[in-house]
Amino acid sequence: MTAQTERHGVADDNLPARYNGIRKTTTDLCRNLSAEDQVIQSMPDVSPTKWHLAHTSWFFEEFILAPHSPGYQRFHPRYGYLFNSYYNGVGEMHGRTERGLLSRPSVADIGAYRKHVDWHMQALLNAPDLPKAVADLILLGTHHEQQHQELLLMDIKHVFSVNPLQPAYQHPQPRDAGARRPMTFIRGKQGITVSGHNGDGFSFDNELPQHRSYLQAHAMASRPVNNAEYLAFIREGGYRRPEFWLSDGWSTIRQRGWNRPLYWSDALDAEFTLAGLQPLNPDAPVCHVSYYEADAYARWAGARLPTEAEWESMARASLSGPSGHPRHGNFMDSGYLHPMAAGAAGPAADGQPDLPVQLFGDVWEWTSSGYASYPGFRPPAGAIGEYNGKFMINQMVLRGGACVTPRDHIRASYRNFFYPDARWQFAGIRLARDTA
Amino acid sequence: MTAQTERHGVADDNLPARYNGIRKTTTDLCRNLSAEDQVIQSMPDVSPTKWHLAHTSWFFEEFILAPHSPGYQRFHPRYGYLFNSYYNGVGEMHGRTERGLLSRPSVADIGAYRKHVDWHMQALLNAPDLPKAVADLILLGTHHEQQHQELLLMDIKHVFSVNPLQPAYQHPQPRDAGARRPMTFIRGKQGITVSGHNGDGFSFDNELPQHRSYLQAHAMASRPVNNAEYLAFIREGGYRRPEFWLSDGWSTIRQRGWNRPLYWSDALDAEFTLAGLQPLNPDAPVCHVSYYEADAYARWAGARLPTEAEWESMARASLSGPSGHPRHGNFMDSGYLHPMAAGAAGPAADGQPDLPVQLFGDVWEWTSSGYASYPGFRPPAGAIGEYNGKFMINQMVLRGGACVTPRDHIRASYRNFFYPDARWQFAGIRLARDTA
Amino acid sequence: MTAQTERHGVADDNLPARYNGIRKTTTDLCRNLSAEDQVIQSMPDVSPTKWHLAHTSWFFEEFILAPHSPGYQRFHPRYGYLFNSYYNGVGEMHGRTERGLLSRPSVADIGAYRKHVDWHMQALLNAPDLPKAVADLILLGTHHEQQHQELLLMDIKHVFSVNPLQPAYQHPQPRDAGARRPMTFIRGKQGITVSGHNGDGFSFDNELPQHRSYLQAHAMASRPVNNAEYLAFIREGGYRRPEFWLSDGWSTIRQRGWNRPLYWSDALDAEFTLAGLQPLNPDAPVCHVSYYEADAYARWAGARLPTEAEWESMARASLSGPSGHPRHGNFMDSGYLHPMAAGAAGPAADGQPDLPVQLFGDVWEWTSSGYASYPGFRPPAGAIGEYNGKFMINQMVLRGGACVTPRDHIRASYRNFFYPDARWQFAGIRLARDTA
Amino acid sequence: MTAQTERHGVADDNLPARYNGIRKTTTDLCRNLSAEDQVIQSMPDVSPTKWHLAHTSWFFEEFILAPHSPGYQRFHPRYGYLFNSYYNGVGEMHGRTERGLLSRPSVADIGAYRKHVDWHMQALLNAPDLPKAVADLILLGTHHEQQHQELLLMDIKHVFSVNPLQPAYQHPQPRDAGARRPMTFIRGKQGITVSGHNGDGFSFDNELPQHRSYLQAHAMASRPVNNAEYLAFIREGGYRRPEFWLSDGWSTIRQRGWNRPLYWSDALDAEFTLAGLQPLNPDAPVCHVSYYEADAYARWAGARLPTEAEWESMARASLSGPSGHPRHGNFMDSGYLHPMAAGAAGPAADGQPDLPVQLFGDVWEWTSSGYASYPGFRPPAGAIGEYNGKFMINQMVLRGGACVTPRDHIRASYRNFFYPDARWQFAGIRLARDTA
Repeated sequence: MTAQTERHGVADDNLPARYNGIRKTTTDLCRNLSAEDQVIQSMPDVSPTKWHLAHTSWFFEEFILAPHSPGYQRFHPRYGYLFNSYYNGVGEMHGRTERGLLSRPSVADIGAYRKHVDWHMQALLNAPDLPKAVADLILLGTHHEQQHQELLLMDIKHVFSVNPLQPAYQHPQPRDAGARRPMTFIRGKQGITVSGHNGDGFSFDNELPQHRSYLQAHAMASRPVNNAEYLAFIREGGYRRPEFWLSDGWSTIRQRGWNRPLYWSDALDAEFTLAGLQPLNPDAPVCHVSYYEADAYARWAGARLPTEAEWESMARASLSGPSGHPRHGNFMDSGYLHPMAAGAAGPAADGQPDLPVQLFGDVWEWTSSGYASYPGFRPPAGAIGEYNGKFMINQMVLRGGACVTPRDHIRASYRNFFYPDARWQFAGIRLARDTA
Repeated sequence: MTAQTERHGVADDNLPARYNGIRKTTTDLCRNLSAEDQVIQSMPDVSPTKWHLAHTSWFFEEFILAPHSPGYQRFHPRYGYLFNSYYNGVGEMHGRTERGLLSRPSVADIGAYRKHVDWHMQALLNAPDLPKAVADLILLGTHHEQQHQELLLMDIKHVFSVNPLQPAYQHPQPRDAGARRPMTFIRGKQGITVSGHNGDGFSFDNELPQHRSYLQAHAMASRPVNNAEYLAFIREGGYRRPEFWLSDGWSTIRQRGWNRPLYWSDALDAEFTLAGLQPLNPDAPVCHVSYYEADAYARWAGARLPTEAEWESMARASLSGPSGHPRHGNFMDSGYLHPMAAGAAGPAADGQPDLPVQLFGDVWEWTSSGYASYPGFRPPAGAIGEYNGKFMINQMVLRGGACVTPRDHIRASYRNFFYPDARWQFAGIRLARDTA
Repeated sequence: MTAQTERHGVADDNLPARYNGIRKTTTDLCRNLSAEDQVIQSMPDVSPTKWHLAHTSWFFEEFILAPHSPGYQRFHPRYGYLFNSYYNGVGEMHGRTERGLLSRPSVADIGAYRKHVDWHMQALLNAPDLPKAVADLILLGTHHEQQHQELLLMDIKHVFSVNPLQPAYQHPQPRDAGARRPMTFIRGKQGITVSGHNGDGFSFDNELPQHRSYLQAHAMASRPVNNAEYLAFIREGGYRRPEFWLSDGWSTIRQRGWNRPLYWSDALDAEFTLAGLQPLNPDAPVCHVSYYEADAYARWAGARLPTEAEWESMARASLSGPSGHPRHGNFMDSGYLHPMAAGAAGPAADGQPDLPVQLFGDVWEWTSSGYASYPGFRPPAGAIGEYNGKFMINQMVLRGGACVTPRDHIRASYRNFFYPDARWQFAGIRLARDTA
Repeated sequence: MTAQTERHGVADDNLPARYNGIRKTTTDLCRNLSAEDQVIQSMPDVSPTKWHLAHTSWFFEEFILAPHSPGYQRFHPRYGYLFNSYYNGVGEMHGRTERGLLSRPSVADIGAYRKHVDWHMQALLNAPDLPKAVADLILLGTHHEQQHQELLLMDIKHVFSVNPLQPAYQHPQPRDAGARRPMTFIRGKQGITVSGHNGDGFSFDNELPQHRSYLQAHAMASRPVNNAEYLAFIREGGYRRPEFWLSDGWSTIRQRGWNRPLYWSDALDAEFTLAGLQPLNPDAPVCHVSYYEADAYARWAGARLPTEAEWESMARASLSGPSGHPRHGNFMDSGYLHPMAAGAAGPAADGQPDLPVQLFGDVWEWTSSGYASYPGFRPPAGAIGEYNGKFMINQMVLRGGACVTPRDHIRASYRNFFYPDARWQFAGIRLARDTA
């Protein structure tokens, strides 16, 4: 990961504010959760809430305080073992599937751990001579923590969903004000395009280096596929007709008995949300589908999924400014924590007139691109080099962020990635088409 | 289960005291546990602490209050689903392996559930005309709850053992005052014996009916195998030499990589206890071994395990009175919660002179008897008939109770049972031999 | 295994005839099988035909020729590794689940191996001074080979059953001439009985020593449960009602989707046999049921399964002579290779008037007895001691032999054993009852 | 699959010769195999030899004879079920993992099936008015059969490798005459390239349509990685150091205990070949490595794997003519059936001077490209559309053919694909590098 401080806005002198704000947001997200809620691991992919709270603190302790804060004493000798997620470079770690077996350290212990780390970080953050390399690592740590804010929400949603009592994370809110919009296809750019982050401001290493690739003639859907459309796919035998499915997808849905999106009710009229079970909104984007389902839907619809280069090209065009960051959209910041119907989040949803809407926010959009390194990719030296590079196999890229992503965390070059059978993330479908 | 009120002692008019005492003991056992501790299921066999608290209450609600307390309102409509352990006769139930996925109902909710049940039980317990059948069911419920007191302790020990922080359930206590004693073999009775409960006082249905069987000429060890002896077995290659092992046992230890009792340290000099990691006491009974290990040890030692009829015959002889209940011994009541060396729990450990000691308490003793119905066994009608009978396959009988068993719960005819590969229960080894 | 030559009949001077006859029978059983047929392992429990041909030869090579025939050269240096079934005492072995991966050695190679072994055995068999210990081992080897004759037939039946072409091992034969008979219950002996082999003639070690046990008052069904009766159990919801099932049995049938005996057609009107798919004979004994199914049927029928001591006591009474061997019955020798309706195999089916019929032959009868050592059991020294003893856990005893068992291989004290979920062996149901 | 007859060479009037030649080659490949050899399925990915013989015939029966040969009678009513590999569009099929359970149909039956199909194909092949669409399907069928020739060799190699007797498919041949050559890096083209088949002559549908993509500045190794180089990787801890591995690769090698290429001996000095166990030739290309191993090797070597567009661009340049087909190289046709050292197969191994050698033949070369559809890809209508498209997920592209590939089957645009953990195919490593 190449972490570079931003030239405008979140510059070095704003780093303390950014750090403290993000750390506070994380703990705020747990306000409504009991200590018991924070212990559960409902499947191997999920981590307990308190594990997220501890792991994000460990990240600062391991990569910033321990090497760069002279005399720093680790809070607890075993936390490095317990809260290392996957960095082989810093030693042995607790098994990923065993994170839900830990009643200790308690939520209170981890709260103290967070305070301990935050306390020691203040001195570093306010040091007049903070080396740029360290500032870059701290900035990386804040983006890392934002990723875990989203993971925390995804994970607690799953935890609550497997509980027969179906608890709610927050109170239901009024249905969004979105309207039904037709889906049209909008022509994208053809020819050589430039993808990836330009190095101006922060990005993760997997967005680098900027590079050229070639776009075929194509068009992209004006909005994501909505629940009503997906329901039609189901009703027309979508899950029973092998001709729509990739072979591995067909095996997956048969072995696991899938016949609808992850959180839909058996009657196909409600879905489990962070506000509990709610009626299905036909106009809201379909969410919590796997790559296999997105791909099968697209084939049924006579379309395909976009490549990530197509998506990025269109996303850059849709933004009103050159920054690559969306200014509007349904993100974590809105507190709705559920996809909204097109238009609900504002007139143009950060889209230029006559360009696709909702490219940012609401739902992550599966692309047809396997998660691979960009040409010339070089992970940074040391354990931090494990951040992204070693996962570049067997996963597919998703773009655009979702309703549980912090708004200032996302950008046009941002690459998310999941295995094609994963669907507890807030993933939806954007269609594309070849054009003559 | 045939539940009969006892003629002496715990008669109908003592039932309220017994009920209230046992209910209080259960909650007292959780005094040192945080809410988080009470949520964890560390393996499929283990249930979370709060599940035990709820299930034992559900037992009274389902089998006593709902049918026998007019107008009783269930505390929560889903608790029947959540806290039914295995009674197909009363409906669908939550999956056994998913008990650790429930942050809700909370420990506090379940505390309220217990109070609700206890409140409604008082009226019933103090009813002047309580039918004997209902009193019998209540008595059964109290014995059921005592079984879960032991399970709760077994389970939390396992939960803590898989935590790299190795928390302690209670403070360490001084090492017991037991001395090293030689193991001798004491001749048992030969010929026809009478086994099973005589129907005088409470028993579980699996102890009935009393019946005859034939004892071969045999002798039984004067005390359980101790840690020093088991260590010698390990040091002489016990876990590496197939000739000592049943074929299924050999497969089991190879597949799971077992080379010592469950809670022993890698260096074979300490064991994890309810008071945390403690030095191994060479004179204390070896504990937490599977049937396969007990059987292999016996073969290595040139001996065998006793049959349950042999054990029961010897146990009756060792008791000072006709009641079938031990008056001394290292039980849950002592609070030590770990096996003690021979003699530590009192001069004769409830044994007659020249008879085996520690038959009761300290460790459950594996017998060579498969868990099967006694001749003429009839489970009671209805769902309560599922209590014992349907488990009479693939398991082995253990006898005598352990240091986590309530003293007044055990008796000479008491039959416990586990699969031969289970070892999280407090199980040890009593040797026997054929004699000419 | 304690192998003792018989005093009458199969004495030392008949051993060559016995050896050569049994060896020939084994190869005769393969007459209709192609080389390809002899390669297949259709599930882990099944061994390929040619493996049986080789393993039975290896038994003589390993335990008789190598130690007792001076200068004997093993046929092939790797056959000891390939064809050792489970004797840890003689070294490493090929994995049990990988027996079907061997195209080499070929059927022809193994034919040559058999000839090589037979050739060298002749000298030993005809030696004037053959030591009794060696003769005993040879006799054991012949009984061992008879066990594999039955296994070979069980296994090839399974191999053919999983082939969508449903090949037949032999031509269909006319339906047996048995008639429908009512099932009655016949009182058995009560009190002390003597079980086990008396040491007079050959037995396996697991039939020894003879010993006393106590029989409760009981009665035994006059014949095995037939297909019509079992069909009634199915039709009355036998596989859908948990109240009939042991808990482990209920799990088993649900996980594996069992709703009928192993080889029954989906329409419940035909069954796959060694003569291919044949109409179900309502009067023939039900066959290929697991212990769980036998036990559930008995509970549904208001009865129970017999103990092995009850069975043996009744079987001895039913035989016309003191030898313990049946003279009549539907065994492998008849070539029918399928259970027959009661009475089909002769007037009294080797039963005394007013005593149960078909105790021997037709189907193995599940008993309620776990497979355990008899009191005072001592396996022989060395690897041959692994023959039986190490399997005495987790399995249930079956008695009486089946239509694929060689007649002279069976006797009243003979103990067969399978895991409670096994049903590819020819296993059926004999009911018993408690009497006042 | 879009199958187009070639304009030059294999035109319509040569189709009979091509068909008959390829069919004969397939049966010739089985000359040294016994019927027993042809039954075994050594792992789920492997099919028995006779299954390949039948399936390739079924392909002609199902897609050509049944629809296009009036009055054609299928050879056997169940063969469609048994020998359909994966075409959901033509109905249910036998389970892939159960192909090794079939002793029937026999090798002889399948030989008759082949003759039956061939007989009926002659009339069609020689029909004066054979429609082009049918001729295209037949041509496709011959390429399909060539794929199975390679699969048959891969599979029987695996079958023999798991046999402790380690049989040989053919006699060993003299070691190849290749010499040790240094590995250099040769600059590739940068900028827009055209990939894919030009539609002139036969190709599979996955090679279409021809399209543009953008090549970064790069260079490619002059020859594949050889055994000596791979041995150095192993000796320097390649399999013990996580920093070289993708995360999924690291899990894979740890779970499966991999520490060397599939067929290497434990001592790292020999490898199992189709001629049995042979000394390792340090100069021959390393073979039978997974994508994970190829990728880890490249990272250790400070290089990377080529993309498929880079590979294809270089391969086109290396060929002497415009046809896209290699004229030289170590292919199945040579009968060596094992990779040779660089230069062994001829002076330039079909490479232009100063260009990489062995791009074709010897070993398939892993590329870093996930197997995905080309822009504008359209599978043909009907079941034949399942040929390639539905597998375009989770697999990686390999290029160039191997020593078991028919020479005239391969071309510059040919795309092979396997899961990243597969290594029973003849897969090796070609390195590439970014250049400034």
